[in-house]
Amino acid sequence: MKNFMDENFLLTTRTARKLYYEYAAGMPIVDYHCHISPREICEDRRFDNIACLWLGADHYKWRLMRANGTEEKYITGDAPGHEKFRKWAETLEMAIGNPLYHWSHLELQRYFGYRGFLNADTADEVWELCNERLWQLTPREIIRRSHVAVIGTTDDPADTLEWHQKIKEDDSFDVQVLPTWRPERAMDTERPDYLDYLEELGQISGREIRSFSDLMEALKKRMDYFAENGCCISDHSMEYVMYAAAAQEEIEKIFSRRLSGEPLTFSDQKKFQTAFMLNMGREYARRNWAMQMHFAVRRNNNSRIYRRLGADVGADCVGNGAPVSELVDFLNDLDMTGELPRTILYSLNPADNAVIGTVIGCFQDASAAGKIQQGSAWWFNDSRQGMTEQMTSLANLGLLGNFIGMLTDSWSFLSYARHEYFRRILCELLGGWVENGEYPADMKALERIVKGISYQNAVDYFGFHVKG
Amino acid sequence: MKNFMDENFLLTTRTARKLYYEYAAGMPIVDYHCHISPREICEDRRFDNIACLWLGADHYKWRLMRANGTEEKYITGDAPGHEKFRKWAETLEMAIGNPLYHWSHLELQRYFGYRGFLNADTADEVWELCNERLWQLTPREIIRRSHVAVIGTTDDPADTLEWHQKIKEDDSFDVQVLPTWRPERAMDTERPDYLDYLEELGQISGREIRSFSDLMEALKKRMDYFAENGCCISDHSMEYVMYAAAAQEEIEKIFSRRLSGEPLTFSDQKKFQTAFMLNMGREYARRNWAMQMHFAVRRNNNSRIYRRLGADVGADCVGNGAPVSELVDFLNDLDMTGELPRTILYSLNPADNAVIGTVIGCFQDASAAGKIQQGSAWWFNDSRQGMTEQMTSLANLGLLGNFIGMLTDSWSFLSYARHEYFRRILCELLGGWVENGEYPADMKALERIVKGISYQNAVDYFGFHVKG
Amino acid sequence: MKNFMDENFLLTTRTARKLYYEYAAGMPIVDYHCHISPREICEDRRFDNIACLWLGADHYKWRLMRANGTEEKYITGDAPGHEKFRKWAETLEMAIGNPLYHWSHLELQRYFGYRGFLNADTADEVWELCNERLWQLTPREIIRRSHVAVIGTTDDPADTLEWHQKIKEDDSFDVQVLPTWRPERAMDTERPDYLDYLEELGQISGREIRSFSDLMEALKKRMDYFAENGCCISDHSMEYVMYAAAAQEEIEKIFSRRLSGEPLTFSDQKKFQTAFMLNMGREYARRNWAMQMHFAVRRNNNSRIYRRLGADVGADCVGNGAPVSELVDFLNDLDMTGELPRTILYSLNPADNAVIGTVIGCFQDASAAGKIQQGSAWWFNDSRQGMTEQMTSLANLGLLGNFIGMLTDSWSFLSYARHEYFRRILCELLGGWVENGEYPADMKALERIVKGISYQNAVDYFGFHVKG
Repeated sequence: MKNFMDENFLLTTRTARKLYYEYAAGMPIVDYHCHISPREICEDRRFDNIACLWLGADHYKWRLMRANGTEEKYITGDAPGHEKFRKWAETLEMAIGNPLYHWSHLELQRYFGYRGFLNADTADEVWELCNERLWQLTPREIIRRSHVAVIGTTDDPADTLEWHQKIKEDDSFDVQVLPTWRPERAMDTERPDYLDYLEELGQISGREIRSFSDLMEALKKRMDYFAENGCCISDHSMEYVMYAAAAQEEIEKIFSRRLSGEPLTFSDQKKFQTAFMLNMGREYARRNWAMQMHFAVRRNNNSRIYRRLGADVGADCVGNGAPVSELVDFLNDLDMTGELPRTILYSLNPADNAVIGTVIGCFQDASAAGKIQQGSAWWFNDSRQGMTEQMTSLANLGLLGNFIGMLTDSWSFLSYARHEYFRRILCELLGGWVENGEYPADMKALERIVKGISYQNAVDYFGFHVKG
Repeated sequence: MKNFMDENFLLTTRTARKLYYEYAAGMPIVDYHCHISPREICEDRRFDNIACLWLGADHYKWRLMRANGTEEKYITGDAPGHEKFRKWAETLEMAIGNPLYHWSHLELQRYFGYRGFLNADTADEVWELCNERLWQLTPREIIRRSHVAVIGTTDDPADTLEWHQKIKEDDSFDVQVLPTWRPERAMDTERPDYLDYLEELGQISGREIRSFSDLMEALKKRMDYFAENGCCISDHSMEYVMYAAAAQEEIEKIFSRRLSGEPLTFSDQKKFQTAFMLNMGREYARRNWAMQMHFAVRRNNNSRIYRRLGADVGADCVGNGAPVSELVDFLNDLDMTGELPRTILYSLNPADNAVIGTVIGCFQDASAAGKIQQGSAWWFNDSRQGMTEQMTSLANLGLLGNFIGMLTDSWSFLSYARHEYFRRILCELLGGWVENGEYPADMKALERIVKGISYQNAVDYFGFHVKG
Repeated sequence: MKNFMDENFLLTTRTARKLYYEYAAGMPIVDYHCHISPREICEDRRFDNIACLWLGADHYKWRLMRANGTEEKYITGDAPGHEKFRKWAETLEMAIGNPLYHWSHLELQRYFGYRGFLNADTADEVWELCNERLWQLTPREIIRRSHVAVIGTTDDPADTLEWHQKIKEDDSFDVQVLPTWRPERAMDTERPDYLDYLEELGQISGREIRSFSDLMEALKKRMDYFAENGCCISDHSMEYVMYAAAAQEEIEKIFSRRLSGEPLTFSDQKKFQTAFMLNMGREYARRNWAMQMHFAVRRNNNSRIYRRLGADVGADCVGNGAPVSELVDFLNDLDMTGELPRTILYSLNPADNAVIGTVIGCFQDASAAGKIQQGSAWWFNDSRQGMTEQMTSLANLGLLGNFIGMLTDSWSFLSYARHEYFRRILCELLGGWVENGEYPADMKALERIVKGISYQNAVDYFGFHVKG
């Protein structure tokens, strides 16, 4: 029996341990997509207690607490931090097999030096230990200790990027914190505040938006601005990747209806969104930006929770039924004119692994190694099983060696431990193949592959300028 | 090499064996959903031979025999029991890797003391051995030996529940045999005998059914009656969970068309069924009943077999294409008014695991630990792989510790061995995690989790009153 | 640590090795479905170099090379063979975990005696070694060395089958090379050259095609001809198995519209294809042919590549969304009148395993053991994982013992090594179950099962006449 989460956690073979310790563990972290606040990095916020840091914004933990029958006041309500932490400790004990069990203990080990296990009995002891050490753990300190080289945040086109600029100007902190272009609000015509948003976007871009062309021009101006501030990646979140081509004139008519306050039919929305995405894709290609598409999600499923707490609070689920034909037609439309940018496809539904793994193979070309990527196991799939399945599928259907690897997609500063989790799982998988005689013990090739997936492939793919 | 199905069957680690023998094996069985006949329990039917008991009503075995090219007369026809048994023995030999191979041998071991393996060569020997010991194995004796505490049968609203009452009154038998509310015939407007059924339901409830409101009132009266007889669980079987909301008046009009003998359009049926299910759900919430929903099945696919033998004879398959959006909208409609009962979702399609595992997380609240459950691997998924995948998915996406565990869903009295199968698989899974350092060897927590999933969680969830 | 791909490759237990070496390894190969050219067999074509043989027609390898960012001139273009081979060697190094890594090295070991590993460093050495030995490796020699008994090619109804006839007449070569009926072009009304094809088909069958009945009659004449030339298997490739029944007169009208040059609506196409397939199915049943249906594919997704290179060049992907209801209705329509032929269902989407595994169980009958089969893991699923999952699913849901096993579906003469790959995976799976006490170490039964799946079941199922 192995010890609980010791230095060889998840590494069961000699080769796995060698790959992890000699090649993976020392690599810096490139966290190219997350949701942490650049302001909190800039201001180097201090957290009052471990409940603030751990439970303040983490809807992954909220879901588990609700599944344990915890009252909402201990989750998102006004109960004292210590009581919330106790409820979390009670919940965690029941979370056997859950990745949060592992993430939580990795974070306790790496950032707080605690090597026991958190449950109802140890909750008080851990609470005190963490709070004692918390004063050191500002965002910047966590980032430094985690050996992070690049952070990609998630930003609205109307954002001023002031915090990114301040971080860049601050010589005392040399981690790159780069904005990511996420024009979600510009595409989501269903939002009640859509026209207000267009107004805001028009003002900041200096282009009043009275037509679809205006919208595109305004966005291009903001893309120029984002590019000046180091942006080279975009991100889109959608229920599914749709494709309904329409002529430019029809799009203008649809958009004009929306501007005048009319609601759009489903068919009109689909045409609008297709046109929006095609225009964005072409711009990305022209600017040499990468395009991330996150899909197969159904969000805000619980109206009671949504009304009280809003979005991103733990009431989302895996979507299904996305037609591969539309995804393929969308990519092909861009590809036909040579305007398909480097693209990363993330489906939240693990049953899509084979679909995605074969779709990306249809659009690879000589413009980049692994030009079209299947994104790392995402959100609900960030488990040992989910990551193993995504990488095994990718290996079966394409070139795992060119995979750009892990990102946290996280709202929490302590999540860099998930990169360690990922790297251990990667090395266990590759090591197992070598030990089983399925790949030669060719250390030169394995070093290149492990370092590549842990770090170098992402640097090369996005063209980040990093030292060393 | 391990011996064939010995005492450590499926238990490969020390921890797995410890969890199984110290915590799981001794727990009573709560078989909260099955299809056995309360009359046969009450009358304590004797079986003429092992073919009657094993092959008389078990469409799982029939399917395998057909897949072996067996003639129907040996399956559901009038061939002598001995010959049918031989054909089954020949089939079983080819069923390597099939759960029926394991179930059959567990049953031979536990109820007949046979520890060899059944095939064409041993068929005669096993036939004789089983028939010798069969005289002792009445339903009540099987139930007693299996250490069963509670049985949930499956019952129509028009049922008199007389056999449940007689069992309850019989002091010589203290296992609880409780009715489960399954109002399938009241919802299935497509059946040619639908109006006859409404007539029958009207009579037994004392409320003539001339409107949708009447139907609901009649059902409520029967629910009162079921509740008096110990019912606290409902069950629904559907191709998929649909959602098409409509106003009360429209539902009355649709129902009135059906009463007058008109066929309903697909759209009308969908509205009717949505209204029916929403009304039922609200009633369950009010009565504190649990709601089981079985879906992603396509039934009676073979017309030749259906005409000859009817339903539930081995011609059903896994369904696909159920939209998660409708499932979510249905649950949300009930939840918005605080009328979502405790709910158990079972999809027959294992590719739905991630969908279900994340949907349930959207509707958990403080009214119960694990209020919304993903049901145990069901029917075609009752295999080692199917159970392991369902529990792994559940662990990844929620709190496995709150899982209410196994039920047989069976038509056969010998199926209690499947609870043993399930518990071994559970302990192997948890034991493996502990041995691999993924969960601490915290025996207090593991005892609570293993006993919980094996027995206690279901008792608490359904509120059964059991001794000990 | 096991050695890289040594004699015990993929065989980790004593039982697995015993099953493989004593039962599986010696069986002849029945490759009942592939795409190799009968002409090349007949003429016993010689290959100029290993690049011609390996890279000339293998779109599996092309995809991987594109995923490595290789320029098209080294893939399908006019770069010298030696340079193409180098690019392939560089690609292969990154293909850790990919079945092509294993297939390629099995082929290097078995046909060229090379036991190292191919990468950028060894590319030149391997190039020379292979080319030296290539002069011996004509198609016939590869087939002989591979111990192949029967080959099923893929042929159009209008084909003269002259090469099959010449091979049969040639006494120096006694492997059976049988045509397979694939009437794809007769069904695909969307092709621009559809009417030309009907003309061609009319001429070769001596029946001018002026109606749907004519089409069916022409095809029947060609089926007679195919049968005379040893054909007993058909093959269909479709996006999904559809079902939209229509009266004979409506089909005639639809066909007549197509004959007059009108495009068909989607609904008309669906009716036409349903009628076409039902007619074919009935003919197969009458002639005792087996029907293969390959589906869940979306082809030719990349217009740029399609325009340059045509079909089957590596731009296809896994399809989704095929409704199980239509598949079931199609099979049931044939079954109702006793006209469902032996049928093999292949879905390219591995998430369909449970659907297919349960659909086939609905239509089994006494006319053959395993009358309806789930085809072997296919195309993108021909990996260790894909094969293991398909066989595990089949075992869970039916009788693995009756499985007709592997086929290459390949365009390359060296692919017979995939039968070895399959048999190793099969023996590892079965051996693992025996070692784990899940099936008895009953060598008589295991011999029958392993030899059956490796060879004998296919011979019996298709009724091949083989020696020995």
